Order: sequence, then structure tokens, then C-alpha cells
Amino acid sequence: MDVGFIGLGQMGSAIALNLVKAGHRVVVYNRTRAKAEALAAQGAEIAESVAEACRRPVLMTMLADDAAVESVVFGDGNALSGLGQGAVHISMSTISVALSERLTEAHREAGQSYVAAPVFGRPEAAAAAKLFVVAAGPEAQLARCQPLFDAIGQRTFVVGDKPSSANLVKLSGNFLLAAMIECLGEAFALTRKGGVDPHAYLEILTSTLFSAPAYKTYGTIIANQQYEPAGFAMSLGLKDIRLALAAADALSTPMPVASLVHDHFLSGVAQGAGDSDWSALARFAAANAGL
Amino acid sequence: MDVGFIGLGQMGSAIALNLVKAGHRVVVYNRTRAKAEALAAQGAEIAESVAEACRRPVLMTMLADDAAVESVVFGDGNALSGLGQGAVHISMSTISVALSERLTEAHREAGQSYVAAPVFGRPEAAAAAKLFVVAAGPEAQLARCQPLFDAIGQRTFVVGDKPSSANLVKLSGNFLLAAMIECLGEAFALTRKGGVDPHAYLEILTSTLFSAPAYKTYGTIIANQQYEPAGFAMSLGLKDIRLALAAADALSTPMPVASLVHDHFLSGVAQGAGDSDWSALARFAAANAGL
Amino acid sequence: MDVGFIGLGQMGSAIALNLVKAGHRVVVYNRTRAKAEALAAQGAEIAESVAEACRRPVLMTMLADDAAVESVVFGDGNALSGLGQGAVHISMSTISVALSERLTEAHREAGQSYVAAPVFGRPEAAAAAKLFVVAAGPEAQLARCQPLFDAIGQRTFVVGDKPSSANLVKLSGNFLLAAMIECLGEAFALTRKGGVDPHAYLEILTSTLFSAPAYKTYGTIIANQQYEPAGFAMSLGLKDIRLALAAADALSTPMPVASLVHDHFLSGVAQGAGDSDWSALARFAAANAGL
Amino acid sequence: MDVGFIGLGQMGSAIALNLVKAGHRVVVYNRTRAKAEALAAQGAEIAESVAEACRRPVLMTMLADDAAVESVVFGDGNALSGLGQGAVHISMSTISVALSERLTEAHREAGQSYVAAPVFGRPEAAAAAKLFVVAAGPEAQLARCQPLFDAIGQRTFVVGDKPSSANLVKLSGNFLLAAMIECLGEAFALTRKGGVDPHAYLEILTSTLFSAPAYKTYGTIIANQQYEPAGFAMSLGLKDIRLALAAADALSTPMPVASLVHDHFLSGVAQGAGDSDWSALARFAAANAGL
Repeated sequence: MDVGFIGLGQMGSAIALNLVKAGHRVVVYNRTRAKAEALAAQGAEIAESVAEACRRPVLMTMLADDAAVESVVFGDGNALSGLGQGAVHISMSTISVALSERLTEAHREAGQSYVAAPVFGRPEAAAAAKLFVVAAGPEAQLARCQPLFDAIGQRTFVVGDKPSSANLVKLSGNFLLAAMIECLGEAFALTRKGGVDPHAYLEILTSTLFSAPAYKTYGTIIANQQYEPAGFAMSLGLKDIRLALAAADALSTPMPVASLVHDHFLSGVAQGAGDSDWSALARFAAANAGL
Repeated sequence: MDVGFIGLGQMGSAIALNLVKAGHRVVVYNRTRAKAEALAAQGAEIAESVAEACRRPVLMTMLADDAAVESVVFGDGNALSGLGQGAVHISMSTISVALSERLTEAHREAGQSYVAAPVFGRPEAAAAAKLFVVAAGPEAQLARCQPLFDAIGQRTFVVGDKPSSANLVKLSGNFLLAAMIECLGEAFALTRKGGVDPHAYLEILTSTLFSAPAYKTYGTIIANQQYEPAGFAMSLGLKDIRLALAAADALSTPMPVASLVHDHFLSGVAQGAGDSDWSALARFAAANAGL
Repeated sequence: MDVGFIGLGQMGSAIALNLVKAGHRVVVYNRTRAKAEALAAQGAEIAESVAEACRRPVLMTMLADDAAVESVVFGDGNALSGLGQGAVHISMSTISVALSERLTEAHREAGQSYVAAPVFGRPEAAAAAKLFVVAAGPEAQLARCQPLFDAIGQRTFVVGDKPSSANLVKLSGNFLLAAMIECLGEAFALTRKGGVDPHAYLEILTSTLFSAPAYKTYGTIIANQQYEPAGFAMSLGLKDIRLALAAADALSTPMPVASLVHDHFLSGVAQGAGDSDWSALARFAAANAGL
Repeated sequence: MDVGFIGLGQMGSAIALNLVKAGHRVVVYNRTRAKAEALAAQGAEIAESVAEACRRPVLMTMLADDAAVESVVFGDGNALSGLGQGAVHISMSTISVALSERLTEAHREAGQSYVAAPVFGRPEAAAAAKLFVVAAGPEAQLARCQPLFDAIGQRTFVVGDKPSSANLVKLSGNFLLAAMIECLGEAFALTRKGGVDPHAYLEILTSTLFSAPAYKTYGTIIANQQYEPAGFAMSLGLKDIRLALAAADALSTPMPVASLVHDHFLSGVAQGAGDSDWSALARFAAANAGL
């Protein structure tokens, strides 16, 4: 397929490369051109502007936050005017439910389609084309996009024809991860104060009740107390919990653990840990216990 | 080995039977004699009193709570006086850290040993001899007890020579389960209000980030909204969170998510859901969102 | 003085009337004209549009929320273009810190001044010209506005030259009120379950530690369990706590009690109590205890 | 009247002295004799033992905690056996509801009466005989004790014939104070980060919504950021919140703000602030905001 691709961060670059490898024609744009050049060396073409990347039937975006997406879609020389009638915009960024709804409407008014397809998986999974894609949008468009999803992920989950549903699922998943980290932080603080070796404790948890990869990954970081460099920064964790709480507020759904985790992230950022891994929640749980 | 066994609830009966099957001589006592008789039919002997069950070198107890253990160990015709010098008491019950420390001291003063060996696993796992045993106590005593642990579980984790450490690990594990349930409850409430099908959502969670058995078991109950009959009653969940918080308080470790879960269990019990499954936390999360 | 006045709700009407009584020339505008007519009968003039109300050296606004203020100031035929050079806009509405900062900037760019002057006090206090005015803005402008504040309130507190500071103080005050209500709700639930008569309990609280009017007002409502009709609706309480939390988030200040109160308001609104008094938080605290 | 008095801390000494001044015969006992001697110089008699202080028709106790009361009432040479038939024990200590119920029963079995009469007021109020007495017990006994209450307080509130009701009211009052401190801490952190002067802010709060003494006292400490020396130590605040939560748990009443305050006290104590004033909660609220 013929794809424009905007947003070449760690995740976006890995995804774009897998599209190239799968034989798709990919025209990439990134604000910092160097990242586009790295991909060009591996077979992508370079667009000099957002508008140029939008002269394709399919646009994929993988951007940092709401503001970046708004700028690309609604800003000067933007995607909305650049994309042709009948084009589809696949947004993989972790953005707000509200923005996803706004994009749905804006693309519809412009005679285009909008598909939300956020992904679960860390950069290693992106590089290995092992992402999980959570997709929502018009059925025909999802079918049209499936070859692209196949090129980047190990499995696609369709959650309906309302694009923002996919964003809601993604945000709720990040909430569950953040909450798991907070809970592990409390449990490790408790058992450490009781004299239990953290690595022995981790072994018990992940061999019995909680054999999921998420528990292993974050339990290991916590047992090692090594929160830098960040795999996923606390400031980004805070951003995502904010989006989850905004969605919850709009849907009149109280989420007390999300509120608590938000406050702990906020405290961490206020105390200068915004660039630490979001699992540094556990360092604060320990500090609160005098460790 | 020659073992006295007190406490034939669902878990205790399954454990005692596996000891018999493994060739150990097991003398069982239960307040309600009928449960002892069921085991006698399969090869156990029946003790008519706590004292009689204690005339063995090893006593195993699997009782409902602190009060039951206190009654057996310190009450009239009790274990402490019934057990001989050099005997070992293996306590598998989920009890408080404080009581475990008191038992350690009391048995030491009586010239006996005390091993804490709480288990992870539901009744099915107990029946299949697939429990996980978390054991702590004097090294020599743990070695002595190992054949018994082998008869009832798939793996034994040793967490040190201080028996109460094993209880602390067990309580922290139950906290992590209860917290996971609360978080799932909030996430399901959010996505249901957003129009996402609960079973599709569960499939995503357990196929991606959270492939652990605990998420599958409880996620299914929540997606089905079927909290009765209880696998583990909310009143028992409340009891265990109380014990976790008591341990946390004694160790000066704030556990805000545990406090929150405690309050939600308390609210559930106050509103008549004490006999529902503890995962009915999710029903309250949904009700708080107007579902 | 010569004043345009927009927003004739219960508070705005009482304030405008006091301005008239104090001898100021007041031109009022309200979307629903009937309310303006009631004031005209008592000496105010009626403006037929926002723009007409803005042809004065001073504009006072008392509107429901951010959206209403944005519409008046930035909408068609708006205040920003209607007000002349050198005019001052006194905003008394409870609005977000972010909007107050935006208004400060917009009026400055238009050669006008902006003063934030939210008030504390219920409608009775407004009618009696006994409000407390919390004002912030350029010193000279505050001096210029003082005769107006004197006409409507019993005391003016100046909190600096940054207008949004006054909004922050107002929002923090509403947070303290909402939190007080939540705490009273928990305390009444506890003592009621313990058999203490609520009115006797209220008498103790307000005669000893908490003799403040706020405790008397809300303690009486809670002891009487009479939450309808609302003095201040729960949906408005939710709105204000949202604004407080938004300010706290922007200032990286975790406010866990505010988060908790937000979640309880949200739950109340989700369950249909949005039109009850915000002190119905206490009804939910009681319900959670099985009362 | 003829009164035995045990417990000469800051509060107890002031109370006992006021009893002497009012013309009562007071026999005092304190573990540290020096404090008794100070009172003897002002007209009290000294008892050499608990038992000796109990040879009166009335015993008043003002002790630090449950353990101290248990030791005096149930320990060797204790009050229960020392007091005669028909004697009344007036317990003014802040103790658990559970212990108060146990004392009620024990004294009844011993043919004695038990009255709970905890007080509100700081040491200055005790010295000035301006305490508020919250009393509960059999009506006839309350009447009998009234002259003593009159000698030490400005007003007596009777909350029924079940003594533990008075303890529940006292604990709920201390919860409300602790919660108020936490909320003020959050509000001051927010406004300080927003650039509002803390003393100006305090002036607004206490001149408008919250004119109660408790807000003035603690608001001043927080605005001054002077938490040492402690008027009431954080470790004691933690103790009282624990008792409130224990009562709430026994009455199946969730108190989420109490849980939150408990966790913050626990964190403070774990970090070494146990001897600071309990209002140092506000210092932690500020620290969590990076101040």
C-alpha cells in the first residue's frame, strides 16, 4: 500500500520500518529530519512537509500527545486539507477520547475516514513487529487497513466502529499498568520493611499468582530499585492517567485508584522525578515508609 | 510421617487427603465431626479432641482465622500443652503477623518449633496437590517438613527463618489480588460506560498485558457479572485486608491502595454483600458509575 | 459609577440591585430578559445585547461557568470588542485559573484592564450586601473598583496583582467546603451507627471545636438528612472541584482529598443526585455504611 | 467530693488542680511521683499506689492510651479490685470504643459504675477549667459526677447511657480535626504554589467561611510552617486515627478520609516526624508538591 507516515519517535520509527520491510511504499515526515533520513536509508521516502506526507490514500500518525496530533491535523498546511477525499487517517498515538471524537467528526466532514489504532507494546515489541493493535472505526476501513496492522503487530483487536473506543481501551490499559506498579510498590515496601528479600518476593509473585509479563518487567525494576534510564517516563505516565481520568470524568465513572495514582505521579513530577521510569512510583512508596 | 491435622474446611480437607495419599499417617480433628469422618473413609484416623490430634511429632493446622488458631493453640486442652517437646507446629492458615510472632514465641518457650506455611491456590489447586507453599521457620524444621509440603503443593518457596515473614508474604499477595480486582472493576466500569463489550475487553487484557491466571479468573467473573456463589467471600477478603493493614501499620508502611480496598470491602459488607465473591468489588465500582 | 452588568442569576441579581441602591448607574443584560426587567423596576437600565452593556467604563460579570464567560467575552458582539480602551472588566464568576489568565492577557491586548473578584457568600449574603470579595488585579484598578465592592460586600480581600490568584483562592475555598462536607458525612455516619443522636452530635461539634457558620449550615442539613431543594447543587460542586483539581494539576500540587471528593461527587451525579444539594455527599457516606 | 485521681500528664495535672480549687478532696497517683508532689503543694493528697488512690467513692483517670488504662484497671493491685461496691470510675482518657465497652462490663460485674467522660480542649483550656466534657453513662451516675465536670469544664454534653458513645464522639472529633489539618495542608500548598501569601490566605479563610478556633489555631501553625515543638504530637494523632478507624471498622462504616489521613500520619511517623505537631501533615502536603 501507499502510506504517509508522520511521527518518527522510538515507536514510530520501528513501525514505519516494519511497513517498509513488508513491502509497503512509505513516505515519512518528522519534524526533526534526521530521523526521516535514517529510515530513508532503509527504503522509505522522505516528505518535506506534513502536506507532502498527506498526498497518499493512507496516513498513519504516531505522535507524542494531543497537542502534536492537533498541530498535524488542524495546523497550517495540515493533514485535514492535505488528505484527499476517501483517504483514511490511522491514528496510533495515545490521545484523549475527546480528541479522537473530534478527529472522527473532522475527517468525516472532509470526506475522509478516521481509524483509531493505538498499540500495546514497548519499543522492543514494535521493532519485532509484535505489537498488539487495538483498532476501532468503520468496518470497511478496518479491513482496508488490516495489511498495515499485520505488518506491525502480532494481533489486531477490533473494538467496534466508534474510533474513540480504541483510545478508551488503550487508556484503561495504561491505567491498569500504572495501578499495578503502585500496588507492587506498596507490596514491596511492606515486605522489605518486614525483612523479606525483594528478589525472593518477586520470584514468588511471578511464579504463582502473577505470571504476566507486566509483573515480571516492573517487578524486576522495583526489586532492583533501578528507575533510570526510563523505559517510559513518569511525566508520560502522568499524561496518560490524566487522559484516563478525563475520559472517566466525561463518562461519569469514578476511578478512585486512578485518582490516587494520578496524585502520586503528580507528586513524583513535582519532586523532580518526571524523567525517571514511571515505576519510580515504587521509590516513593518506599520513601513514604521511611525506606 | 506421623501427622496431626486440625481444620477440615474445603482447603484443609483437600490437603489432609493428599497427605494420606502420599502415604503419611494422618490423624484429623475437626469441630464438626462429619468432615473428619469423610476423611476417615479415605484412610485418615479420627481424633476426638484437639489434645488427641496433638500427640504426634508434627501438627498441621488450617483454620479460618486468628480466633480459631488462638482457640486451638491456647484454649482448653490446647495444642501448646498437648504437643510434646521437639514437636513442630506447621500453621497454614492465613493469620496475622502478630499472632504468628506470638506463636513462634509460645512454641519456643514450650520446647517446640513453629513453622508458618501459608499457601496460594484455590480449592481446585489444593485438591490437585498443586498449591504453592510459602514457608518460613528454622532451617532444620523446614527440611523436616519438606516431605509434607511436597505432598500438597507443586512448589515451596522459603522466605527465611522468621515464620511471620511467610504470613506477611501471604497477606501481601492477597492484597495484590484484591487491588487487582478493584482496578479491574474500575476499568470495566469505564469501558462499559464507553460502549466497549466486556468480553472483548477481557480478551484484549488477558491476551496482551495481563496474561496471568488471576486476571483471567477474575476478569471472567467481572465480565459475566456473576458474583454468586462466592469462590472467596467478600467478608474473608475484608478480613485479609485488615490483617495486611495491621501488619503495614505495625511496620509503619502506608498502603493507600490497601486502605481504599479495605473501605470498599467494608462498604460492600455493610450493604449486605459479605457472602458474595470478593470480586463483587467490581459491582460496586459499576454502581458508583450509575451502571 | 457607570457600570454594565451581565449575568442576572440569583447571585448576580442581588449584587446588581445593591449597586443600584448604592447610587451607581447600572445597565444590565441577561440572556433571559425577564430577569433584567425585574431589576429595571428597581432602577436599573436594560441593555438589549452584550455589546450594549459593554459601552461603559466598567463591566461586571457574574456568570455560571467558563463556557458562559467565554461566550460573553470572546463570542459574537462580544465584550472584548465592545469595551473601550481603558475600561475594566470585573469578573466575579467562579471560573478556572486558566480562563482567568487568558482573560487577563486578552483584555491587556485590547487596551483594557481585568480584575478578578470572586465572592464568598450564599444568596442571602448577596442580598444583604454582606458578601466577602476576594479581589486581584492591578493596584490602580482595584482602587477604582473599590466603591463597587463596598456596595456589595462587607469586606474586600486583596490577594495581589495577578487576577487568577483570586480565582485560585475562591476554588481552594470551595474545595475546603466540599471536603468539610465529606468529613462531616463520614463522622455523622460513624456516630449514627454507634447510636449517637445526630442533633446532639451536631450541637457538640458546633459548640466546641467547629463553631464556624459553615459547620452549622451543613451540619444541620446533614443531621436533618434533607438535601433537597439544593442550596448549591452537587453538579456545581463537581464543577468547582474539577476546576480546583485542574489548577492543582497545572501547579503540580497533589490534593488527595480533593481527588476523593471529586470521585464522590462524580458518583453522586452518576447515580442521579446532580440536582441535590452538594452536602448529599453525606447521604452517600451513610449509604456506604449500610444506613 | 472525695476523689482518687490517676494520671498527671499535662491535661491530668491541670484537671486535678481545678478539682482541688473547687473544694474537692483529691488523692492523686502518678507513676512518676514528682508530678504528684507538685499537686500536693497545692492541696492534693498523694497516694503511693493505684490501689490507694482507689479507696474513694470516685476514681477519675486521665491516661495516655489503652495500654495505660488497662494496666491501671486490670493490672496488679488494680482499680477494679481496689474500688469498692458502688464506686464510680470516670475515664477521661481518649481510648478505644472496644476498651470502653470492656470497662463498662468489668465495672458492672464488680458492682461498680463506669462513666466515660473524654474532653475537648488543649492544655490551656484545661488549666482555665474551660474544657468541654462529653459524658455518657447511667443517668444517676452522670448526675453524681456533674459537680466534678463543673469544676473542670465550661460545659458538659451528655450523649446517652452507653459510655462508649462518648468515646466514639471524642474519636470522631479528633478525626474531624485531623482531616481539617490535612485539607488545610492541601489548600495552603495549592495557594502557595500559585503565589498567594499564606498569611493573607489564612486571614481570608478565618474571616469568612471558617471562623472557628480550630482553623485559626492550625492555620496559623501552617502559615508559619512551625511544627515544633508539638502541641499535640503526630504519633498521638496517628494513635487516635487508628482508634477511630478501629471503631469504624467494627461498625462497618467506611471512612475514606480517615484512611487517607491515617496513611499520611503513618508516612510522617515513618519518616521521623512522630514528635512534630500533628499539623505537620501540611509540611508533607507541601513537600509532595515540591515545596
